[in-house]
Amino acid sequence: MAFWNLDTLRLEEFRPGILSKAEIGDNLIMVVMEIEAEKEDRGHSHNYDQCGIVVDGKIEMYIGKERRILTSNESYFIPSGLQHGWKTFDESVKLLDVSIKDS
Amino acid sequence: MAFWNLDTLRLEEFRPGILSKAEIGDNLIMVVMEIEAEKEDRGHSHNYDQCGIVVDGKIEMYIGKERRILTSNESYFIPSGLQHGWKTFDESVKLLDVSIKDS
Repeated sequence: MAFWNLDTLRLEEFRPGILSKAEIGDNLIMVVMEIEAEKEDRGHSHNYDQCGIVVDGKIEMYIGKERRILTSNESYFIPSGLQHGWKTFDESVKLLDVSIKDS
Repeated sequence: MAFWNLDTLRLEEFRPGILSKAEIGDNLIMVVMEIEAEKEDRGHSHNYDQCGIVVDGKIEMYIGKERRILTSNESYFIPSGLQHGWKTFDESVKLLDVSIKDS
């Protein structure tokens, strides 16, 4: 499917507390992700860039030494190799996330 | 800069009628683009995936045989090699667009 409406797109359970739907091409992976309130990824890194935008809700992210609470229409760019993590608070968050297909 | 607020981010002229700001990593290019009303790209293709989301405004896009008018919170995914183009109408559109760094 070439086009998605993120307000109505049906997501599926990806991990406990995270719903998602992915489009996988030859070299990009685009994922819509909805993360529940009170979840956390304390940090990890990988050797490819990753980026995205908050569509709805709120999330705290850190990328290297930068840390910010992001809401709707705020984007992030995680350079290859940089440690990053995230945390939700009292509400869920919906993201559109894009990364390299790890082939 | 790891984080951008797309509602307030300052864009620069990229081509006549298109303002943009890009973040270029090792393998991804993330671009915020604001396209004026009444502009058109009749179509082209390239050998890498491209995807993105409408942040504000309205744009018609086609990807292969699929054609849709997209507004806020609607995403697109352009598989490698597929012909695609776009057209704006009576209002501008703001997009977050991601593609492979063509190296």
